[in-house]
Amino acid sequence: MTAKITQFLAEQRPETPCLVVDLDIIADNYDALRRFLPVAQVFYAVKANPAKEVISLLVGLGSCFDTASRPEIEQVLAAGASPDRISFGNTIKKQKDIAWAYEQGVRLFAFDSEAELQKLAQSAPGAKVFCRLLMTCEGAEWPLSRKFGCDAEMARDLLIKARDLGLEPYGISFHVGSQQTRLDQWDIAVGKTAMLFTALNEAGIELKMINLGGGLPARYRDDVAPVDDYASAIMNAMTKHFGNDLPLMIVEPGRSLVGDSGIIEAEVVLISRKSYDEDVRWVYLDIGKFGGLAETMDESIKYRLQAPGEGPSGPVVLAGPTCDSADILYEKYQYQMPLSLKVGDKVRILATGAYTTSYSAVNFNGFEPLKAYYV
Amino acid sequence: MTAKITQFLAEQRPETPCLVVDLDIIADNYDALRRFLPVAQVFYAVKANPAKEVISLLVGLGSCFDTASRPEIEQVLAAGASPDRISFGNTIKKQKDIAWAYEQGVRLFAFDSEAELQKLAQSAPGAKVFCRLLMTCEGAEWPLSRKFGCDAEMARDLLIKARDLGLEPYGISFHVGSQQTRLDQWDIAVGKTAMLFTALNEAGIELKMINLGGGLPARYRDDVAPVDDYASAIMNAMTKHFGNDLPLMIVEPGRSLVGDSGIIEAEVVLISRKSYDEDVRWVYLDIGKFGGLAETMDESIKYRLQAPGEGPSGPVVLAGPTCDSADILYEKYQYQMPLSLKVGDKVRILATGAYTTSYSAVNFNGFEPLKAYYV
Repeated sequence: MTAKITQFLAEQRPETPCLVVDLDIIADNYDALRRFLPVAQVFYAVKANPAKEVISLLVGLGSCFDTASRPEIEQVLAAGASPDRISFGNTIKKQKDIAWAYEQGVRLFAFDSEAELQKLAQSAPGAKVFCRLLMTCEGAEWPLSRKFGCDAEMARDLLIKARDLGLEPYGISFHVGSQQTRLDQWDIAVGKTAMLFTALNEAGIELKMINLGGGLPARYRDDVAPVDDYASAIMNAMTKHFGNDLPLMIVEPGRSLVGDSGIIEAEVVLISRKSYDEDVRWVYLDIGKFGGLAETMDESIKYRLQAPGEGPSGPVVLAGPTCDSADILYEKYQYQMPLSLKVGDKVRILATGAYTTSYSAVNFNGFEPLKAYYV
Repeated sequence: MTAKITQFLAEQRPETPCLVVDLDIIADNYDALRRFLPVAQVFYAVKANPAKEVISLLVGLGSCFDTASRPEIEQVLAAGASPDRISFGNTIKKQKDIAWAYEQGVRLFAFDSEAELQKLAQSAPGAKVFCRLLMTCEGAEWPLSRKFGCDAEMARDLLIKARDLGLEPYGISFHVGSQQTRLDQWDIAVGKTAMLFTALNEAGIELKMINLGGGLPARYRDDVAPVDDYASAIMNAMTKHFGNDLPLMIVEPGRSLVGDSGIIEAEVVLISRKSYDEDVRWVYLDIGKFGGLAETMDESIKYRLQAPGEGPSGPVVLAGPTCDSADILYEKYQYQMPLSLKVGDKVRILATGAYTTSYSAVNFNGFEPLKAYYV
């Protein structure tokens, strides 16, 4: 809770559920990242929170932008960023969207497959392209599966092919998994990347850029290392594997820039028990999995909660307001709440500035998407 | 595929992804249900597809409506249904929404807890209330968890309390789980309900209604029994446990009325392999888990797919277009697609008329919510 958010909630008393974001926190997080990783260019992952207030702030601070789609690129351009500050970082793009982005002046594109490379060669001739490397990501709370990236052998061949197709083979990207809690994962990933740099050098290609992806955490329920520990781990890995000859470094923070900046205020709609012999209370909030808390899927992201009331606490199952049985936030991972909690109380869900509003269902069960205020 | 949908797609060539719903199928499904279960009142579960075209059609056909929220009630009223055709079926309601619904003339409300009963007594005096009974639902593909309902002992006490609070203890509801494939589940549930009718009779309360919930399936990947088999199973259970003295019966179909009526047309954005030694192709569509296919969560609902092309097929992992690693549709449950499949091909996802549009994320990764056309 920041003073600005507290004041906003006290004075405006907005309808719940709502997200309130303190933009100063985002600015502070951006400055801290720039201070601890001065050699890296910051490409904000717009998908984490695409609000125009957030994008405008970061345009003003000098950030670059990692975008997933044409509408995200449109937003970033509309906020005043020049196209050379934009990376079209999705490896899954429609040909017509590549062509459109290229027309706007975007020149940096991700890929991880031959089919995507062919699209880029056709619709973005001469553009800088980087290949995403498949990583096995231990220690990430929101794991990245195998959806993105290809293995090192294929990445090498594709970067050679990129050159042959008239593109500029520019670098390698990877992602160690979102909300990554194990610092050693960057060492492994940077090591693999450095080997690829060498392999491509032997093929006459000098890669210029390493894109270290995201993965820096926000503070949820469990404590995480401070950002400077992450920065040190990254820089140690870079100097270990690249020596003094560091390539251009890019980071793509989303969660770590905006996660901590926001708080969702929700209301307790119902508290009940299923039978007389159960101790566990079911606490139903007016926000759930389909109203912005999608990352509670499989109880992956464990938000910190603040409930009013003093005195002893007891175990609760937390659920959302829809008629969907899957709309349960936490059941296996049992939270505790004051026994004095009552219907109508306000509960605050902390560090919800990232991956909440844009995940909201458009009108599931008739409920409106999550409202947000930027202060 | 119906002729109307085929014609619409051929003539209009809408941008993908999009859902096309044939309203005639919904009308046919409604008629079939009325024919096979003539003694039951149909309350359409609006959450399955809240499009105004669907609601208007069902208002015209004489359906009643199971609603989850104030906006759903507003929609049903706006479509011309009188308030006595509306059940406020969500057991998790804000007090102010109960009061609002009561002002509109809604007189039928669900509950499963004492706290909810207190709200109803205060804001909907004299209303008919029914208590939802907790069921363990084996055989349901979209299981209902323990989120809704209370056990039989508590249900009995709460219905007695309802009378004491000036409400009309009207009946019992249950839900055997959505997309329920085991016909015997209704027998178990009806048996439990009949015992509660008896117990309340002994307390001087004559319940009048049994709400059999939803659970009737749509046709996804696996074959399901036809609707008349379900109707027979339900009627057999009713006569077995209630004899000739049948209470008023209510059913709340959602999926079984509208599921089969719609088809999503999607485009293949990318086909790739992760390495040279893997046979499995990754096929990325322009729709995914956050664009309307939320029910692929944990690969629960397995849609039937139609892909173009002849010749041999091979295994695929199917994924959506966002940069979210969780946006994978089917990985464990491997689908087969023609080896000749190529980028730009159209893939049709069948039986997607229910639980798709309203689940769409509002703008995750910048992508628009799923567009829908009703023909």
